Amino acid sequence: MPTTVFAKILAGELPCQRLYETADLLAFLDVAPLSPGHTLLIPKEPAVTLDALSDHAAAALGAALPRLCRAICAATGANAYNILQNNGRAAHQEVLHVHFHIVPKFATAGLDLRWQTQPAPASAELAARIVARL
Amino acid sequence: MPTTVFAKILAGELPCQRLYETADLLAFLDVAPLSPGHTLLIPKEPAVTLDALSDHAAAALGAALPRLCRAICAATGANAYNILQNNGRAAHQEVLHVHFHIVPKFATAGLDLRWQTQPAPASAELAARIVARL
Repeated sequence: MPTTVFAKILAGELPCQRLYETADLLAFLDVAPLSPGHTLLIPKEPAVTLDALSDHAAAALGAALPRLCRAICAATGANAYNILQNNGRAAHQEVLHVHFHIVPKFATAGLDLRWQTQPAPASAELAARIVARL
Repeated sequence: MPTTVFAKILAGELPCQRLYETADLLAFLDVAPLSPGHTLLIPKEPAVTLDALSDHAAAALGAALPRLCRAICAATGANAYNILQNNGRAAHQEVLHVHFHIVPKFATAGLDLRWQTQPAPASAELAARIVARL
């Protein structure tokens, strides 16, 4: 039984403004958009977070992004946009099924970011710890 | 001649804390991180924005994300993170070469988002305009 709103959309139990669909993915308009054309791209594979998604599904999502971005910009007139994908409640994930946001940016609408960098620089020690786990 | 800092990193003209590299892409630690483990994933193909990237390179980036996210979370202890990819100066793009940010989220560090939805709902008319351009 689908447990998220996106699983229900995939199962045809909830409607959506459908943009693009393949065997691996579905794209549709966000019902609570940050700007006109705000789109959600989701895998059919039911992973909660990106780290749990198969490489195959992740590649399919990646490959679909340029095409979707071109069409969304052409249709809305946007010449800037953000791709955002949130994992975990602490990182603003609301629906527990992997989803990429494509958010056109306009003067008065779009993704609102703050960029607060840290004093800690990129370090060889941290890089080595990550590399050891790849 | 490389014209961006990322092109110079790819050309070996600037150093980086390298995490992962294939024929299509390179991942390395951001030198001005939002949080420990903040990573940049870039294609070797020199596209400025995602809409200009080949499907092949975009698929390679997508496929690399789950593996990188698992390693970064394991190495830093993060259990939440954001993927962000900015296109255009108005959308906070600083370096004019496609790059995905992987930003671990901690209580006091990470990506700071504001989520200001619009009253305009997802519409069939807007969906049709996008579909016509796909």
